[in-house]
Amino acid sequence: MTKFRPSVGPGGATIATIADEVGVSTTTVSKVLNGRSDVAPDTRARIEASLKRHRYRRRGRRPTSTAQVDLVFHEFDSAWAMEIIRGVEAVATAANVGVVLSQLGGRHRPPAWWLDGVLARRPLGVLLVLCHLTESQQQRLARQMIPFVVIDTDSATSASVPTVGSNNWNGGLLATRHLLELGHRRIAIISGPENVLCSRARVAGFRFAHDEAGLTVDPELVRYGNFQLTAGYRHGMELLTRPDRPTAIFAGSDTQAMGVFRAARRLGLDIPRDLSVVGYDNIPVAAWLGPALTTVDQPLRDMAGTATQMLLDLARGGDLPASRVDLVTELVVRESTAPPPG
Amino acid sequence: MTKFRPSVGPGGATIATIADEVGVSTTTVSKVLNGRSDVAPDTRARIEASLKRHRYRRRGRRPTSTAQVDLVFHEFDSAWAMEIIRGVEAVATAANVGVVLSQLGGRHRPPAWWLDGVLARRPLGVLLVLCHLTESQQQRLARQMIPFVVIDTDSATSASVPTVGSNNWNGGLLATRHLLELGHRRIAIISGPENVLCSRARVAGFRFAHDEAGLTVDPELVRYGNFQLTAGYRHGMELLTRPDRPTAIFAGSDTQAMGVFRAARRLGLDIPRDLSVVGYDNIPVAAWLGPALTTVDQPLRDMAGTATQMLLDLARGGDLPASRVDLVTELVVRESTAPPPG
Repeated sequence: MTKFRPSVGPGGATIATIADEVGVSTTTVSKVLNGRSDVAPDTRARIEASLKRHRYRRRGRRPTSTAQVDLVFHEFDSAWAMEIIRGVEAVATAANVGVVLSQLGGRHRPPAWWLDGVLARRPLGVLLVLCHLTESQQQRLARQMIPFVVIDTDSATSASVPTVGSNNWNGGLLATRHLLELGHRRIAIISGPENVLCSRARVAGFRFAHDEAGLTVDPELVRYGNFQLTAGYRHGMELLTRPDRPTAIFAGSDTQAMGVFRAARRLGLDIPRDLSVVGYDNIPVAAWLGPALTTVDQPLRDMAGTATQMLLDLARGGDLPASRVDLVTELVVRESTAPPPG
Repeated sequence: MTKFRPSVGPGGATIATIADEVGVSTTTVSKVLNGRSDVAPDTRARIEASLKRHRYRRRGRRPTSTAQVDLVFHEFDSAWAMEIIRGVEAVATAANVGVVLSQLGGRHRPPAWWLDGVLARRPLGVLLVLCHLTESQQQRLARQMIPFVVIDTDSATSASVPTVGSNNWNGGLLATRHLLELGHRRIAIISGPENVLCSRARVAGFRFAHDEAGLTVDPELVRYGNFQLTAGYRHGMELLTRPDRPTAIFAGSDTQAMGVFRAARRLGLDIPRDLSVVGYDNIPVAAWLGPALTTVDQPLRDMAGTATQMLLDLARGGDLPASRVDLVTELVVRESTAPPPG
C-alpha cells in the first residue's frame, strides 16, 4: 500500500515551510493534513490558511493493480441497486480499480465492524449509497486519507460531505404537474421513508405543483413507506378502497409502482382508464410493464459514475469543483397515465 | 498475505516424507501441491498416490480481516445478477470476507487483464458466474493456490471444475408437463443462447415431456435467444403473429417472459385467457407481474450461497464432498397459465 508522502506546493512549500511560517512542529502540520482531531481549533485554522496561501497540495495515492474502492449499500434493492453497481463498475473498471461490495442489512449507519474492515484493506476511497458516517467515523477515514462520497443522502449529512444526488424536488414537481395537466384533482403520493430527505423533497415538489394550480392537498393522500413492492401494494390497497379514492397515484419508486399495479389489478381497476400511475427512477423494467410506466427518470448510472469519478479525483489528491452535485430529473411519459375517468 | 505453508498428514507425513517415499525432490512434491504443470505425468501420479495414502492435507489460507473473494459475472443482468450477489454476500459477510465484484462485458471467458488483477490481489478464491477459465488460466490460479467455483456453467467445463448449478432438464420438464396437463398442444419454448448447456438442457426436458405425452414438437416453436426482455419481445411477436400461433410460451427467464407479456399486450392477447406464459428463475418481481407469473423456481440465492461456501472450504484446504452440485428446480404455479382457448 502507498502511504501518504509529503508533497510540495507550486511555490515549493513543504510541510517544514508551513510549520515554520505558522510556528508549529511538522507533526502538527501532518496531523491537520491527515484530518486528525487532536489539534487546537485556532492552530488548525492558521495551518489551513497557510496551506491554502501556499496552494499546498497533498499528494494522493495512485491506483495500483490492486487498487479498490468500497461500495456500500444500506441494503440491496434489486433493480435500483443494480443500476448503481453498473454505474460504479463502468468508471472503476476504466480506471483499473476494483469494486468491493457490501451492504448493511438495512442500517443507514455503518457499524464498527464494517469500518474496521475498510480501514484494514485501505481502499482508494469509499462510496456510500443511502447511508452515512458519524463524525467520528469520518475522522477515522480522514486520518488514513481515505476519501468518501455519498450517493444520494438523507438530511443529516453536512454540506462539506461530497454527495451526488438528483433533484428530487423537481422530480416531484414534474410528475405532479403532468397529472394535474391531465385533469386529475385527487392525486395521492406514496413517497419513501419520511426520515429520508429525498422522500420529503418529492412531497414538497408535489405540494408546490398543487399550490401553483391553486389546489389544496388532501393530507389523507400523502403517504410514506419504504421503496419496496409491498409498500406500494399496501398503500395502493388502502388508497384505492377509500370511498373517495384518488384517480392517480405517484409512487416513490418503479418497484413500489408495481405494487400499486398489483393492487389495482386485484380491485379490477384498469390502468390508465380508471387509475393513472407514475413511478420514480426509470429502471430498465419500467418501459416493459403492462402498461409501460410513466416515471421520473433518475439517472442512477450517471449518478453512480459521477460519484465514482469524484472519489477517484479525491484519492488522487485533486480538488472537487463542487462537493454537492445534483443531476437533473426528467419525466418520461409512457402508457400508465391518462385523463381521469368520467 | 498468508503464503502456502507445508503441512502434515494425520500420520505426521511431511513433504520430505512424501519426497523420500516417491524418490523425488521436495521441490517436485511442492510443484504438484501447487498445481504446477511442469511435472511428468507418471511422477505426478505417483506423488498424488503417496499424498493420498498418507492423507496429506494442504494447509490453506485462513480468512484475515482483509480476506476477499472475487465474484465475476459475464455481464450484469439486473434482477438475476442481484439474486446471485445477495446469496454470495450473505455467506461471505458471515465469514468476514469481502466481495470484489467485476463483470466481463458479456464475454464468457475472462480476458488477461482480469486475471492479472485477480493474481495481484490474491483473493481467497474466485466465483465465476456464467463464465469459465481456459486451461492455462486455471493453472495460473492453481499455482497461486487460488481455488475457484463456477455458478452455472456451459458445456465446456470439465467434471473436475467445482460447479453449482440447478437441474435445468428437470425445470424444462416440469414447465412443459404443466402446460400439457392444462391441455395445451401447441407450446413454444424460447430458451437461452444455444451455445449454453442450460438452454439445451431445458429444451431437452421440453422434448422429453412431449415424448412422454406421445406428442411431436414443431421445430418452428423451438427458439433460442439471450435471456433479456428484448429477446422475449422479438420471439414473442414472431410466434404470436403466426397463423398457427402457439397457445402457450415457455420463456428462458422471467425477464424474457416480461418481453412476451409485452408482445401479447401489443397484439391484444389476454394472459392467460388467450395465451399461457411460463417463466424461469422466479426472481422476486415474478410474483408481482400482472398477471403473476407461473415460473420455474431456480434457487439463485441458495446456489450462490452454496458456491461461496464451497469456495471458502476449498480456500481453507478442505475437500469437497462433490465437485458438481445441482440444486433442485420446482414449478411455482401462479396466474399466467390456464387451459388453452376454445
